[in-house]
Amino acid sequence: MFNGIIRNVREKSPLVHNITNYVTVNDVANVVLAIGASPIMSDEPMDVEDIQTICGALNINIGTLNQQTIKAMHLAGRKANELEHILLLDPVGAGASKLRTSTAIDLIDELSFDIIRGNISEIKALVLGSNDTKGVDASVDDAVNDNNLEEMVTFAKSVAAKYNSVIAITGAIDLIADANKCYVIRNGKSEMGRITGTGCQLSALTCAFATANRDNILEATAAAVCTMGVAGEIGYERMSERDGNSSYRNYIIDAIYNMDEETLNKYARITIM
Amino acid sequence: MFNGIIRNVREKSPLVHNITNYVTVNDVANVVLAIGASPIMSDEPMDVEDIQTICGALNINIGTLNQQTIKAMHLAGRKANELEHILLLDPVGAGASKLRTSTAIDLIDELSFDIIRGNISEIKALVLGSNDTKGVDASVDDAVNDNNLEEMVTFAKSVAAKYNSVIAITGAIDLIADANKCYVIRNGKSEMGRITGTGCQLSALTCAFATANRDNILEATAAAVCTMGVAGEIGYERMSERDGNSSYRNYIIDAIYNMDEETLNKYARITIM
Amino acid sequence: MFNGIIRNVREKSPLVHNITNYVTVNDVANVVLAIGASPIMSDEPMDVEDIQTICGALNINIGTLNQQTIKAMHLAGRKANELEHILLLDPVGAGASKLRTSTAIDLIDELSFDIIRGNISEIKALVLGSNDTKGVDASVDDAVNDNNLEEMVTFAKSVAAKYNSVIAITGAIDLIADANKCYVIRNGKSEMGRITGTGCQLSALTCAFATANRDNILEATAAAVCTMGVAGEIGYERMSERDGNSSYRNYIIDAIYNMDEETLNKYARITIM
Repeated sequence: MFNGIIRNVREKSPLVHNITNYVTVNDVANVVLAIGASPIMSDEPMDVEDIQTICGALNINIGTLNQQTIKAMHLAGRKANELEHILLLDPVGAGASKLRTSTAIDLIDELSFDIIRGNISEIKALVLGSNDTKGVDASVDDAVNDNNLEEMVTFAKSVAAKYNSVIAITGAIDLIADANKCYVIRNGKSEMGRITGTGCQLSALTCAFATANRDNILEATAAAVCTMGVAGEIGYERMSERDGNSSYRNYIIDAIYNMDEETLNKYARITIM
Repeated sequence: MFNGIIRNVREKSPLVHNITNYVTVNDVANVVLAIGASPIMSDEPMDVEDIQTICGALNINIGTLNQQTIKAMHLAGRKANELEHILLLDPVGAGASKLRTSTAIDLIDELSFDIIRGNISEIKALVLGSNDTKGVDASVDDAVNDNNLEEMVTFAKSVAAKYNSVIAITGAIDLIADANKCYVIRNGKSEMGRITGTGCQLSALTCAFATANRDNILEATAAAVCTMGVAGEIGYERMSERDGNSSYRNYIIDAIYNMDEETLNKYARITIM
Repeated sequence: MFNGIIRNVREKSPLVHNITNYVTVNDVANVVLAIGASPIMSDEPMDVEDIQTICGALNINIGTLNQQTIKAMHLAGRKANELEHILLLDPVGAGASKLRTSTAIDLIDELSFDIIRGNISEIKALVLGSNDTKGVDASVDDAVNDNNLEEMVTFAKSVAAKYNSVIAITGAIDLIADANKCYVIRNGKSEMGRITGTGCQLSALTCAFATANRDNILEATAAAVCTMGVAGEIGYERMSERDGNSSYRNYIIDAIYNMDEETLNKYARITIM
């Protein structure tokens, strides 16, 4: 399935700028290092443009935003667009509060995102919250499953077309779509939801993959999502009777550290629609 | 001893809003997930009321406060009181600085807390720092031990009466009291003090327990404190020669992930006074 | 080599105030606890002077600074100088942005640091960024190696003389210098660079060592740097095939928890120039 994508990350070792929440930031940094890229965090408006200039990507995660970091997101995002760096939005909690929803929508209105990654509720909140839902039917169910798969793939593609962005809707079944093509990924374990921040980690990982594989951002995003899922499976195989979510967290990051494309392709359960 | 309390947490899976310090926040999130509840963090004044509305509890921890998060604590706290959600205060470092002491006392003056959890120094700082110490003899020694136990239990009950709140004074011996009844818990290991944030974790865990067992907040708090102590003992049993506080941290959270009431009751060392 | 330095840390258990980045702060706290000292974090301007007063050291790390924490760094730093507490600067990312470089230089201009610890790029950025580079030849290569060792030792000593501070330049070969003497340390593993925050951890650890060994800050700093490197080697010995950077992080902190001077001296690879 994937050919050379992980090798590119390890060889090019892109520097990823993260404006992210303080809950999961340490794991985010370690995941980026695990795959062979480098993380840098900066969320002070006076600092972010300089930092973005030396990076190849910007990962915006609204998990614990405040007035200052919202300013920083806009400043750094404009700089990333200007320099044609990879720009990703993780709209954590969009739909859960007015501030989160409006911040995510303001960012999408102003900036051009290469990738938007969230769960189905967050992606729906973006679509429903924006003034213009033209061309997108957001009356989909709240989880992707085998019964609504075709409908959900159509939804993902329409959101991708609307935002001119790769859309990654992650859950038990992951959909990674542009306007024309959708990767359907069935890797991962439900127990990953018992660890804080596997989604945040995936967003940063996706930035590393996309930056090192700019000629095919859709496939790079699918490879990142698949890598996270496969790492979740490999990590789960290590679990002993006394282990729980804290050890599992370590095992998953360890599995990303040791991931290669042969392993990834062996575990990958992907169809394209 | 405990009957159905943990099962209620796992079945109801309450959503706990944490305004907490950035030092231990990741472990706090993972502990809440370990017991089967869900954490959300938000400390921006414009966001906290919306977030509190969708939660069942608010955990206020003043470990690394700043001017903005203090505002957020008051706004979210008022919303929690208005909605009759569980409200807990962890007065980290009360007594160590004027700002921490006054912030904790201001919060207690304005809000109605269901639970206040701290070490003996912090609880004494609250009582001594407030203008009205009527009915509370705070001339107690600085650690609960077998010699001063009766005096300390009386102190805990009087603080609980003063604040109309469950008081959890944690240390080598834990006291969990309302005005009339005090659980004396002798679980845990002194080595837990060599891990950052076991107290912060316990406060968030207590919110999850109390939210899922609203009809008996005193017992729910005792069960949470006991769970943390028992997890500390089970985690310690896993320690090998080369392990230290970092692995111990993982083992404790893992033990909470695997905790059930049978295990809890087997390990529990509790008397009621 | 070292005699009594670690024992002093464990016996005196100094309290170290950290104004540090939110990325690695949890590991920083656990490392300080691992060596037997105590950490406290506070970065609110209204809180830091009180907190510094009860501590023995201040660790200033500019990894994720913002306008408020910059104020706090100056206030706490002045208090540390006034009380003659150990004061350390970790100029994370100096040279990478104007704000980071100017913040580090402003701090050095105003405050008297006992120790400055960074990588060679950061230390060079300080020297080149300041108006007065008199007496310092910063045309050194970007990594210390066996070919440029003598030149680099001279550089380290000249920076130490310029700032009247112990300078720790860490990398594959570590240099810890005052104006007259330089410890050259060859411990550690390159894989430590794949874990976020080993440098931040080392800075906090150095504060603990120096505070408990005030009569010889140079040697205490060398012992801290050596301890981190040796812990990196011992942790690496534990690595199994499936382990990666997340488990390695735990193993290193565990190794510091179990470190004693006999082990340290057995592993130490130090020359003095």
